Amino acid sequence: MDLLIKNGTIVTAESTFKADIAVKDGKIITVGQDIEPLKGTEVVDAQGKLVLPGAIDGHTHLAMPFGGTISSDDYYTGTKSAACGGTTTVFDFVLQGKGENMLDAIKRRDALAAPDAAVDYSFHVGVCDVTTPELLDSMEDAVKYGIPSFKVFMVYDFGVDDGAFYQVLQKAAKIGALVGVHAENRDVNNVLVKQYLAEGKTDAWWHYMAKNEDVEGEADVRAINLAKMAGTSLYIVHLADKQGVEAVAQARDEGYPIFAETCPQYLHFTNEVYKRERGRDFVCSPPMKGQESQDAIWAAIKAGDIATIATDHCPFTQAEKDWGITTKDGKPGNFTTIPNGCAGVENMYPYVLSEANKGRITFNKAVELCASNPAKLFGLDHLKGGITPGLDADIVIYDPEKNVTIANSEMHGNLDHTIWEGVEVKGYPVATYSRGNLVYKDGEFLGQKGAGKLIKCKPIKLTGPKL
Amino acid sequence: MDLLIKNGTIVTAESTFKADIAVKDGKIITVGQDIEPLKGTEVVDAQGKLVLPGAIDGHTHLAMPFGGTISSDDYYTGTKSAACGGTTTVFDFVLQGKGENMLDAIKRRDALAAPDAAVDYSFHVGVCDVTTPELLDSMEDAVKYGIPSFKVFMVYDFGVDDGAFYQVLQKAAKIGALVGVHAENRDVNNVLVKQYLAEGKTDAWWHYMAKNEDVEGEADVRAINLAKMAGTSLYIVHLADKQGVEAVAQARDEGYPIFAETCPQYLHFTNEVYKRERGRDFVCSPPMKGQESQDAIWAAIKAGDIATIATDHCPFTQAEKDWGITTKDGKPGNFTTIPNGCAGVENMYPYVLSEANKGRITFNKAVELCASNPAKLFGLDHLKGGITPGLDADIVIYDPEKNVTIANSEMHGNLDHTIWEGVEVKGYPVATYSRGNLVYKDGEFLGQKGAGKLIKCKPIKLTGPKL
Amino acid sequence: MDLLIKNGTIVTAESTFKADIAVKDGKIITVGQDIEPLKGTEVVDAQGKLVLPGAIDGHTHLAMPFGGTISSDDYYTGTKSAACGGTTTVFDFVLQGKGENMLDAIKRRDALAAPDAAVDYSFHVGVCDVTTPELLDSMEDAVKYGIPSFKVFMVYDFGVDDGAFYQVLQKAAKIGALVGVHAENRDVNNVLVKQYLAEGKTDAWWHYMAKNEDVEGEADVRAINLAKMAGTSLYIVHLADKQGVEAVAQARDEGYPIFAETCPQYLHFTNEVYKRERGRDFVCSPPMKGQESQDAIWAAIKAGDIATIATDHCPFTQAEKDWGITTKDGKPGNFTTIPNGCAGVENMYPYVLSEANKGRITFNKAVELCASNPAKLFGLDHLKGGITPGLDADIVIYDPEKNVTIANSEMHGNLDHTIWEGVEVKGYPVATYSRGNLVYKDGEFLGQKGAGKLIKCKPIKLTGPKL
Amino acid sequence: MDLLIKNGTIVTAESTFKADIAVKDGKIITVGQDIEPLKGTEVVDAQGKLVLPGAIDGHTHLAMPFGGTISSDDYYTGTKSAACGGTTTVFDFVLQGKGENMLDAIKRRDALAAPDAAVDYSFHVGVCDVTTPELLDSMEDAVKYGIPSFKVFMVYDFGVDDGAFYQVLQKAAKIGALVGVHAENRDVNNVLVKQYLAEGKTDAWWHYMAKNEDVEGEADVRAINLAKMAGTSLYIVHLADKQGVEAVAQARDEGYPIFAETCPQYLHFTNEVYKRERGRDFVCSPPMKGQESQDAIWAAIKAGDIATIATDHCPFTQAEKDWGITTKDGKPGNFTTIPNGCAGVENMYPYVLSEANKGRITFNKAVELCASNPAKLFGLDHLKGGITPGLDADIVIYDPEKNVTIANSEMHGNLDHTIWEGVEVKGYPVATYSRGNLVYKDGEFLGQKGAGKLIKCKPIKLTGPKL
Repeated sequence: MDLLIKNGTIVTAESTFKADIAVKDGKIITVGQDIEPLKGTEVVDAQGKLVLPGAIDGHTHLAMPFGGTISSDDYYTGTKSAACGGTTTVFDFVLQGKGENMLDAIKRRDALAAPDAAVDYSFHVGVCDVTTPELLDSMEDAVKYGIPSFKVFMVYDFGVDDGAFYQVLQKAAKIGALVGVHAENRDVNNVLVKQYLAEGKTDAWWHYMAKNEDVEGEADVRAINLAKMAGTSLYIVHLADKQGVEAVAQARDEGYPIFAETCPQYLHFTNEVYKRERGRDFVCSPPMKGQESQDAIWAAIKAGDIATIATDHCPFTQAEKDWGITTKDGKPGNFTTIPNGCAGVENMYPYVLSEANKGRITFNKAVELCASNPAKLFGLDHLKGGITPGLDADIVIYDPEKNVTIANSEMHGNLDHTIWEGVEVKGYPVATYSRGNLVYKDGEFLGQKGAGKLIKCKPIKLTGPKL
Repeated sequence: MDLLIKNGTIVTAESTFKADIAVKDGKIITVGQDIEPLKGTEVVDAQGKLVLPGAIDGHTHLAMPFGGTISSDDYYTGTKSAACGGTTTVFDFVLQGKGENMLDAIKRRDALAAPDAAVDYSFHVGVCDVTTPELLDSMEDAVKYGIPSFKVFMVYDFGVDDGAFYQVLQKAAKIGALVGVHAENRDVNNVLVKQYLAEGKTDAWWHYMAKNEDVEGEADVRAINLAKMAGTSLYIVHLADKQGVEAVAQARDEGYPIFAETCPQYLHFTNEVYKRERGRDFVCSPPMKGQESQDAIWAAIKAGDIATIATDHCPFTQAEKDWGITTKDGKPGNFTTIPNGCAGVENMYPYVLSEANKGRITFNKAVELCASNPAKLFGLDHLKGGITPGLDADIVIYDPEKNVTIANSEMHGNLDHTIWEGVEVKGYPVATYSRGNLVYKDGEFLGQKGAGKLIKCKPIKLTGPKL
Repeated sequence: MDLLIKNGTIVTAESTFKADIAVKDGKIITVGQDIEPLKGTEVVDAQGKLVLPGAIDGHTHLAMPFGGTISSDDYYTGTKSAACGGTTTVFDFVLQGKGENMLDAIKRRDALAAPDAAVDYSFHVGVCDVTTPELLDSMEDAVKYGIPSFKVFMVYDFGVDDGAFYQVLQKAAKIGALVGVHAENRDVNNVLVKQYLAEGKTDAWWHYMAKNEDVEGEADVRAINLAKMAGTSLYIVHLADKQGVEAVAQARDEGYPIFAETCPQYLHFTNEVYKRERGRDFVCSPPMKGQESQDAIWAAIKAGDIATIATDHCPFTQAEKDWGITTKDGKPGNFTTIPNGCAGVENMYPYVLSEANKGRITFNKAVELCASNPAKLFGLDHLKGGITPGLDADIVIYDPEKNVTIANSEMHGNLDHTIWEGVEVKGYPVATYSRGNLVYKDGEFLGQKGAGKLIKCKPIKLTGPKL
Repeated sequence: MDLLIKNGTIVTAESTFKADIAVKDGKIITVGQDIEPLKGTEVVDAQGKLVLPGAIDGHTHLAMPFGGTISSDDYYTGTKSAACGGTTTVFDFVLQGKGENMLDAIKRRDALAAPDAAVDYSFHVGVCDVTTPELLDSMEDAVKYGIPSFKVFMVYDFGVDDGAFYQVLQKAAKIGALVGVHAENRDVNNVLVKQYLAEGKTDAWWHYMAKNEDVEGEADVRAINLAKMAGTSLYIVHLADKQGVEAVAQARDEGYPIFAETCPQYLHFTNEVYKRERGRDFVCSPPMKGQESQDAIWAAIKAGDIATIATDHCPFTQAEKDWGITTKDGKPGNFTTIPNGCAGVENMYPYVLSEANKGRITFNKAVELCASNPAKLFGLDHLKGGITPGLDADIVIYDPEKNVTIANSEMHGNLDHTIWEGVEVKGYPVATYSRGNLVYKDGEFLGQKGAGKLIKCKPIKLTGPKL
């Protein structure tokens, strides 16, 4: 026994109870009452604290080339930031190149991640090109390699059309894979962009308007219809609108394995942020929507129709955000010249747990959304997501009494601002363990660059709405 | 450490993992890998077996006066039967007498149960009379005593009208209680009974017809509407029809704390049974419905819209069932002179686990429906419903390879037949522990009359559809 | 040819066109262009005017005993008032006495109406007692006599329970009758009344609160469920809440012959009126609801889910309304001691046509709601409801340019106030013909007491949602 | 008075009544009882017959280049066939060429139609190219010219993408136009075609499978979403699937001006036809679907959620249909090499009226679907669609007793077969008048080539679901 966390209140998705946790060789070996330490066992007293599984952030974009630059967190600063927010596993995206085999793409990207990652990580493959049978079939190689989750984009020029999306879904059904989707109607978005710019509407508000509730909602509905046609499961990433929420709920009631992820930014902010002076800092896709959508998302969380919360972490500096005023090339900017994305990987677990602490949801629900459900959905629940003997000792000690006002100066990522600046959270993580190693304590990062491992996931077979 | 269950595969609602379980003084104290027994610890090898929380049957009628007789299982034979089917807690009903204080009613009934019960038990109070403020207020005494769940009947002459139902719901909202409801439209049922009998339609089929899908569905919908009006939670017992399932699902999508229980008989049988020669043996209320309703219930289980499975155990002998042919008094009988109810307390967990074993649902889902959800709903999850340090050691060892054809001759209750005769289940419990005591092993009851304790439950506050 | 209305713009439910109308012996004989008058034909020039079918008010309570008094309009003043508002047929209610045969009830009531009525009239029978087969069967006598529409009350002590309601529906299905329903949950209403009064909440607002959206909505849904069970059509009178609207729309989408009536007071006023100083003048049942319900009703009108508009005309004097302050007997009054009902029979057609004139709906829709649909629903479209050769010459000439501010001083009924006081309508009827006789012109009643006839209606068979 | 049709029973969408019809200069001038003929008036006795407005077929493809050939009916044979089936107006499609101004396209096409048409006709413009503002703006020129209805294709290579579709909808909202849509998901259709052909699945059944319920349903839903986004009305042509029906019904309940057309082939045939030996004769797009979809369409007709019935008349010879076996070029054919389309213009009114005659719908409903609703939707109700003074005398005399077994040998179009061969209809048109001229009598065409006129329609403003 290397580590013994004593006297804490353990919170899992299922239950809350007082018990000690014994850890050996990076694994939880025993959960029980009054466990005695062995000689040499490090003992941590968690009296008065909650002891939680580390969060799994199913959606990050580290070192991501986008909009003429690259997101400011690399695999080191991003995972360091994650650790300091209680997140012990991140799923990043491998964007397949044109003509590139899925497995080659994974290895290409892993070469960047492996030397840098401070906590465990895995990938979803962003599928861009299935124009040949070989490329489509290479999805199976990825599954065999331990990467059974994919994503398609219904927007962006590198995204897919409905036909490619449908083929990816068909293939996923056969090989035990899950397809995620960024759902926005590209064509309508493009028309609106053109119209707004022609009318001189250039500020961040029009980013929202060009990707409004309807633009997202139509694509959510279409994606669900395509998944039904293909007879397989679907995972809608960063769901942010009411129509989508309703479509997900209905499909689930009908028994379809349709799952949705939302993000803290949609739970806390509305489209009002785009009216702020630095509204451009909040530009991400999909944009924050109106209050009605936010209410619908919270209701769906309570109703069990949102499966996971993830961050879509994709930080850009204020200088880069200012390209919305004057582009990199010195031309007049507009909402389309702002790199899309915001930081969040360090804020997710504190924010969601704070909402639990304030009574909006239970702590169990917070753990379910941020840890156990991602583990089940993405095929790593044999390793992560709970406080159970045999699982990795990815553990967060949380002080429900420690209140924090979020300040970028206290964050550990590589960014000069945060959209979360000034937000008050009730309770905060005070220690994070990654496979039994203390990687964060009381505001300080204590982990190691490169200590994180690539997690190989099991094939994913989801036959109904229940995880 | 009194008992150590080693090498089993533990199944909770949340996860499945290999670990040992240490028990002391009737409680689970540790769950872990390679736990060493102490001197004097009894060690049980569960290699190749599943180790599950004991089931909680939220709906039994022991020694229940009904239809001119009394249900054939008393608190001893009923709980003995439960133990032999892996059920370690039963909730029985206290039927409030006219003018009777709720707490008096509980104590009256507990005087019968306490000396007899072989496993732990608790009560729901069947509310019949709230015509005075004192009677209504006595619900709070029951909650304080540890009985926070109530039930009203929309049918039967001892049932309530909508006004009394509404007042009970209002009161429950204030005192932290849950109201269950037997939902069937009494007036329409009465009209149909009268019409069928006048037309000479007397056999068991007409029991179904007089309580058909619509008769139940209307009442389900009305009950949900009344709960919404009162701003509180609702628990629909023995839900058996499609319209009800849809109404529950919709209310839950809208965020209401509406919960439903179904029973194994609705999952396995349809109204076709009433065409059998001894169709009268299957007469219970609500009756089994058509295939479409059964399909809807199974779909709702998968979609997460059914919270619990319970039995509505209420056994009557074949001689009593024959009153449908010739009444007790020697007159010509009909479907209304058949005592309503069937045995099931020993069959629930084996049946539901068998369905899991056959792949229809996961074992985790089976445990959720039969153990952890009832524990959460009824306010006893601090004691029961999981395999977690600190909980009562109510444990079932289940052999997934042991196949059984159900025969009344092998059952342990006090009845001369079973509607489950001949049904084949895949896998069967091989041992049951009640607070660490072995009460059942390999077909044999090993418990003690009177060893079961009344479980005092916590007040119940349910604010959304998620448990 | 007795009468020739020339040069008007004819508006029917179906179309709008310029044509002349020739009338002979009280019937429309020809509709056409440039019809030449015969010798002795009275010619009326309707140039610049709309020419419409007279309205059919499907819901009035004339000389109605209620709340310790009798509604202030008798069959003469009520029908006079109707004529002056463009309504040429009224349906009044015959309230069956305990043990009274339906046909006897009709004849009893007709003895009052026949000598008084100034325009044509017919009846719905308010069914109160079907406790014997003879009483139930007497519905058929009514149908044969020409009164094929019935109504039940789910509220009031003279109302029915679900069993009687169900039997009435079953019977109606067999004999070609339509059942209307006043849908409010009596039991919950009674509980709320008791609770509010106990809390000293006595003013008109609490009338609304005790019959709020949910109280009506539950009953709407239940009534629809009962009609589905009985396999027959249903007509919900004075629908005033959103849940009911949605239930009607859904049932109709599913193909059920479910119809709804609303009233002008629900279209124009909301529950805000109960906060007025003389809020008690607006006390009617069901009460006006919140804005959301009003919006839903208007939307349903546009969507085709409201079949008719009628008035529920039931006038009481301000002195009677003041019984809400001090009862008839000099005791302190409250919202339950206010007679329920308001005048409206003279305002309906002007109000609805005004809304058309303002562009909210088409004039065709106004005619459909107030004339042709009631004619079809109640079985008198062989006589009334259109501008078609062969129909009764019940015709209104409407001046779209004549704007009127409603004032009780200009109304023709027997009442000292109107809730419509001060409401501005755009356009107004300038002449009304009842079977070719001019009964109203330019503000003046020109008809005859007793000139109205009892209309015998055809049996009613509605098999789908479309009229 | 040129013509007097006496003693018939007139059926309009609204009502049924006995009256005579006087016609002068091609217009209905009077409708009335016992109209006396003038000297020289031709008198037709319609005793025992129904007298109906001529049908308006909103969807034909005459002389339509498609699939390497041209549809076999030109404007003469097509309109002759129409006349002989009681259809007095046809709407054909102008397919805009790449870069072609909408008005030029109309005139180009009208040059073909004008010399040939035997009954009145008008056009919808099939929009293919709105890549420049000028092309998009030219929609307004079409509206001003009297052609205010457009159509886009979501399938076929000449179809639009969602962006162009959205722009067309936006434009239509501004200029008073209606957009129709052929809704099928092109991308998925293409994928399925490729997969089936690769698997050697070549016969007509696979035409259905590649355009199955889901392929159409997704596009229906998407089209409705796009119309909602653009804030305008939509007309879904040839709706043939249940999901689409449900989406239309829901949008209409919510108050959106969404309209649907279906075709007789979807009402009478199911996908079973593709299993017939000459299944290829039935190949049209969308294909006939399963029984569940047919049931849903009929239910929607009854519920009022289908606005019109039209034919999609587009005949190809059996020799051309055989290209599905061996192509024009002598290569092995498959379901993609069969020209898409079937004849129907002569069968629609007889079939729909026959269904009315058999009791499935009312005759009024038949007239509404085939005549008055198309007139209202497409902006020609000031000229066509009813039996009202002032309208064109487009009149059909229908013998409800004349039963006909449809045989291609008796049809008047230019085709060697009909999918309707052998179908028995109850009742049949015995005479058709086009603007007062007898164009069909007792099986014989009596009209004139070129006598038909281009109908100029009014701008179309639809603000809710009600016509």
